[in-house]
Amino acid sequence: MSKFFSAKYAALTPYVPGEQPKDAQYIKLNTNESPFPPPASVAEAAKAEAEKLHLYSDPESALLTEKMAQVLGVERNQVLMTNGSDEALNFAFMAFCDQTHPIVFPDITYGFYSVFAALNGIPYKTVPLKEDFSVDYRDYVGIGQNIVIANPNAPTGMALSVAKIEEIVKSNPQNVVIIDEAYVDFGGESCVSLIKKYDNLLVTQTFSKSRSFAGARLGFSIGNEKLIADLNTVKYSTNPYNVNRMTAAAGYAALCETEWFKNNCAAIQEARTYTAAELKKLGFTVLDSKTNFLFAKSDKISGQKLYKKLKERGVLVRWFNAARIEDFVRITIGRKEQMDVFLCKTAEILEEEK
Amino acid sequence: MSKFFSAKYAALTPYVPGEQPKDAQYIKLNTNESPFPPPASVAEAAKAEAEKLHLYSDPESALLTEKMAQVLGVERNQVLMTNGSDEALNFAFMAFCDQTHPIVFPDITYGFYSVFAALNGIPYKTVPLKEDFSVDYRDYVGIGQNIVIANPNAPTGMALSVAKIEEIVKSNPQNVVIIDEAYVDFGGESCVSLIKKYDNLLVTQTFSKSRSFAGARLGFSIGNEKLIADLNTVKYSTNPYNVNRMTAAAGYAALCETEWFKNNCAAIQEARTYTAAELKKLGFTVLDSKTNFLFAKSDKISGQKLYKKLKERGVLVRWFNAARIEDFVRITIGRKEQMDVFLCKTAEILEEEK
Repeated sequence: MSKFFSAKYAALTPYVPGEQPKDAQYIKLNTNESPFPPPASVAEAAKAEAEKLHLYSDPESALLTEKMAQVLGVERNQVLMTNGSDEALNFAFMAFCDQTHPIVFPDITYGFYSVFAALNGIPYKTVPLKEDFSVDYRDYVGIGQNIVIANPNAPTGMALSVAKIEEIVKSNPQNVVIIDEAYVDFGGESCVSLIKKYDNLLVTQTFSKSRSFAGARLGFSIGNEKLIADLNTVKYSTNPYNVNRMTAAAGYAALCETEWFKNNCAAIQEARTYTAAELKKLGFTVLDSKTNFLFAKSDKISGQKLYKKLKERGVLVRWFNAARIEDFVRITIGRKEQMDVFLCKTAEILEEEK
Repeated sequence: MSKFFSAKYAALTPYVPGEQPKDAQYIKLNTNESPFPPPASVAEAAKAEAEKLHLYSDPESALLTEKMAQVLGVERNQVLMTNGSDEALNFAFMAFCDQTHPIVFPDITYGFYSVFAALNGIPYKTVPLKEDFSVDYRDYVGIGQNIVIANPNAPTGMALSVAKIEEIVKSNPQNVVIIDEAYVDFGGESCVSLIKKYDNLLVTQTFSKSRSFAGARLGFSIGNEKLIADLNTVKYSTNPYNVNRMTAAAGYAALCETEWFKNNCAAIQEARTYTAAELKKLGFTVLDSKTNFLFAKSDKISGQKLYKKLKERGVLVRWFNAARIEDFVRITIGRKEQMDVFLCKTAEILEEEK
């Protein structure tokens, strides 16, 4: 830390992304990336734009925003495109939370929420997940504070129904409820349709997972037009050209690939069902996932040890050194043949532990 | 504004980018874009990455950062790559300024500085440019506050020597001096070499102008490794994957195009010299520009009127409705033939005004 660093950040602990080792070839099941590259039309669209990089991108990302709104069945002014959904989330924390408007979220969830809160000087409170790692929506009904819930939740993979989300939104009309739907396309229920009914609901989603866009950085917020206007005020005071030309064009092309998208999500769900069943055969407890990852534990080996031994064998999964979940590992769903390697190595490791 | 918008932003006036009209084909000399697309190798590099978008970008942008450091003659940990240099600037305002560490900058300069200050709750003070629109470095010597200076300055185009910048940096050892060198490659002197001598100097630059990358969003900060570490703390608490795969690869390819870069900057400087001379023949006062734009006024027509009449004739320049400079227009340097159209239309308009 330099002597010039603002005291307000003295205690700030940044987010730590999943490891991206450069030293060896791993089967990477640790950062919830898609195993499938995007369709060819995406690269073509990006290249065509790369030939026009001397011109600024459209600060409104108008074409992309319009297409996105159409896909979602909402109005154009109810959508804001961002440089990944981390930016969408940070803008929301900035716009709607402050020292006198704290935020509440589950104790086990996306690790960035507490960082966004700390960064922006926002007090926060966490609500413990139930014993079975589910979010109990009743904990949030009428709580009278801003709320962020990942639905499906990470790293558990478990989802709430839209009806339960609606109870939370309806019962906190003076507060913004942010529903982070990063993983919703793998079997969860989206609550986007509720934005027309409730002016306090903001939904964030991302192209990273279900559209194979982790490296493109494209996310978005959906909400009442007044909420979106506020987010635009923050955006135009931060980085007006937040989405570059290539990502915007690639995103538009991706939205035109309806069949590819459906098949992609189905393939991952199929590999998830298969992997979960095989893990259960090996004696694992596997939480009910609606995402592109599984959260699983075995009473034969600790989460940390399994993570380490898999890494030695060339398979990366993610282990969280955190209370309540240190027995688990989070396994991103890759291609079927990758999952077979993972399962085979896991069986070998368990055998050694006997 | 929604009823949920934080009161801290109630008075926030966002930055307004130069207009990007979609209704007609203009000769666009209003947003300081390069008239030349980047070299073909850039689009090829972007496309190759677009085929791997399912994988996250490297949060460290290691290859690009290393190459950039090599080009600049500094160490890798003295450079941070960002999503445009607006992000680099915002990170610096966040990291080094706060309510008790205000910032000072010229009264006429890049319009975003006051927005970054307002966004982050930072008090700021402006120092008037001299009568001739130059920055007097003595106004900043020993001022004892954080400072940001665009060098060359915008929209004037005028530059300070490195020796004068050094006086400012040296005389404010307890404060961070940010030198925004967005336009330095068109004839200004960079002060990057001073970062080894002074731990309080932060330089920001961009690929947008001299490398024809406005639509790619790629900027960077250069400074003492401790300053860069602080900026990384902010980055990893905001948006760890801030630079996408395509932009990172395109940036790397652009840095390999040494000859192209030299010729590109030379061509723009040549067209600038030509345009300035022609404008002077038409009776304009033209400030001495070291950038890819000219700031000029005529006593035969107001800045606003010239802007409007040029727009009617299909040529966009930028006019600022601001004290002291409302007589001027800012003219981006395009291709020689574009400048000829601009000059011809300007002559016509002046003729009408007689």
